[in-house]
Amino acid sequence: MTIQRVAIIGLGLLGGSIGLAVREYAPGIVTTGYDRDEGVRKVAGERGLVGTVCDSAAEAVREADLVVLCVPVGAMEEAAAQLADHIPKTAIISDVGSSKQSVSEALSRALPGRTIIPAHPVAGTEQSGPEAGFASLFTNRWCILTPVDGTHENALAALSEFWTKLGATVEIMDAEHHDLVLAVTSHIPHLIAFTIVGTASDLEEVTRSEVIKYSAGGFRDFTRIAASDPVMWRDVFLNNKSAVLEMLGRFTEDLTALQRAIRSGDGDALHELFSRTRAIRREVIKEGQDDDRPDFGREDHG
Amino acid sequence: MTIQRVAIIGLGLLGGSIGLAVREYAPGIVTTGYDRDEGVRKVAGERGLVGTVCDSAAEAVREADLVVLCVPVGAMEEAAAQLADHIPKTAIISDVGSSKQSVSEALSRALPGRTIIPAHPVAGTEQSGPEAGFASLFTNRWCILTPVDGTHENALAALSEFWTKLGATVEIMDAEHHDLVLAVTSHIPHLIAFTIVGTASDLEEVTRSEVIKYSAGGFRDFTRIAASDPVMWRDVFLNNKSAVLEMLGRFTEDLTALQRAIRSGDGDALHELFSRTRAIRREVIKEGQDDDRPDFGREDHG
Repeated sequence: MTIQRVAIIGLGLLGGSIGLAVREYAPGIVTTGYDRDEGVRKVAGERGLVGTVCDSAAEAVREADLVVLCVPVGAMEEAAAQLADHIPKTAIISDVGSSKQSVSEALSRALPGRTIIPAHPVAGTEQSGPEAGFASLFTNRWCILTPVDGTHENALAALSEFWTKLGATVEIMDAEHHDLVLAVTSHIPHLIAFTIVGTASDLEEVTRSEVIKYSAGGFRDFTRIAASDPVMWRDVFLNNKSAVLEMLGRFTEDLTALQRAIRSGDGDALHELFSRTRAIRREVIKEGQDDDRPDFGREDHG
Repeated sequence: MTIQRVAIIGLGLLGGSIGLAVREYAPGIVTTGYDRDEGVRKVAGERGLVGTVCDSAAEAVREADLVVLCVPVGAMEEAAAQLADHIPKTAIISDVGSSKQSVSEALSRALPGRTIIPAHPVAGTEQSGPEAGFASLFTNRWCILTPVDGTHENALAALSEFWTKLGATVEIMDAEHHDLVLAVTSHIPHLIAFTIVGTASDLEEVTRSEVIKYSAGGFRDFTRIAASDPVMWRDVFLNNKSAVLEMLGRFTEDLTALQRAIRSGDGDALHELFSRTRAIRREVIKEGQDDDRPDFGREDHG
């Protein structure tokens, strides 16, 4: 099977980018879309995020052979349940959520017996909403599929082919391992960024305007990450609780050790860690996961 | 007085950028420079980081009316002491270190009775060494001067004028407050980034190659910060110990509260914080401390 009609439920950054990527890189595929927010549907229509913006989710999915749920992970089950009677029996149901075990379970509960393949394109920006999407969001990014045992090979191949057309490289992983990996590479970094930005804005000794004024020393990078969508991230932490708490425990242990090294003046321990982390940056660049323009190329733009 | 001859000691990212900025924006000023590393001196000569690369620090400072020490803060006292007999009596001695109380004390010990004005341009990239500098590094960035009581007005005005010519906006602050502000906006963010990158690379359940592969979820931004110069940062933490430990304590308290909110499923607490931090990002952009291209404009470069 090859996917020919895609319904996108939720037309924010991810949903909108899928629609635009289809238009750009897979123009043969027909797209329909729905968002429960009327204002979002209006912008989606203006920007042409999908071929047809529908007035109901039921209408959007009626002829789809792939339904992609692009809603916060906490809203997944309800969104899926509302579509149960409208999705064609042969359709694949997928999503773009950042945690996969809870989504996999939620979709199975809402759509028993259907072909469900949870997915997570590891891509995004700190912006959100129907204005934020762009066609190249998935170019050279990973898309992780977490099929359950017994998923039909043809369906898996069709979804893989879809994401490949959009520019992504597909990886298959089990949902539990996905949640652990992403806790480290995405969820904990976001949690830490949210925390430090909150801490800095609550201080009495240092004013908020000073924090903002001198943010070029490193803090501004954290503000970018901490500007990500609040609802999406609330749901991620609530839905990947055990992996997040596990990894947070490791982080806290390491931070405590570093705190002790600073207190005791153990310069060698600090230098050893800082040299090691520098090497990891080189690997990130070598693997094409970031470019090596210093300071994110900010000076290119003055 | 107006500064006409600047000696730059240490020709890495900061020292090299000062030299290049003088050449570009204040070409009437004569620059000399020295680095104790012969290889660095060679590159400095090839790139023309200063007008004259000298074979000794003594020679570089001999006719200077401003000496800028661009060495790690832990090396400041020794570097200054070696120059004590060679710096003209009327010269201003300054630096570019990220902590100011310890540097102020170190320079006072090494150069008693001289005109010392510690300075900190809040600018930099994750790169280091004589290849890393560029003329516009200080453009639209803050440069904080932390003069001690009794600093001669003319000297302060001259140093302010110098940094203004290089494109920076000058602020005067006392050293203690500087160290607290920068602990929040720069030192703690770096410490956290070093820690999480170290934690991620030490896990058993998630391989290092997975961490790198899926780093686009947020982790890669931390690797950039954690790629900063190890010696420089070791010295910053050892020399701004009390402010760093104080702010780290606040951060840890807030992180613990967030951990508890996740564990207990308190979505409202998470949402409230994440909404607040998003607002701070908007202020950072409004104040011109970062640009608003999503994802640092990475998609512009594919």
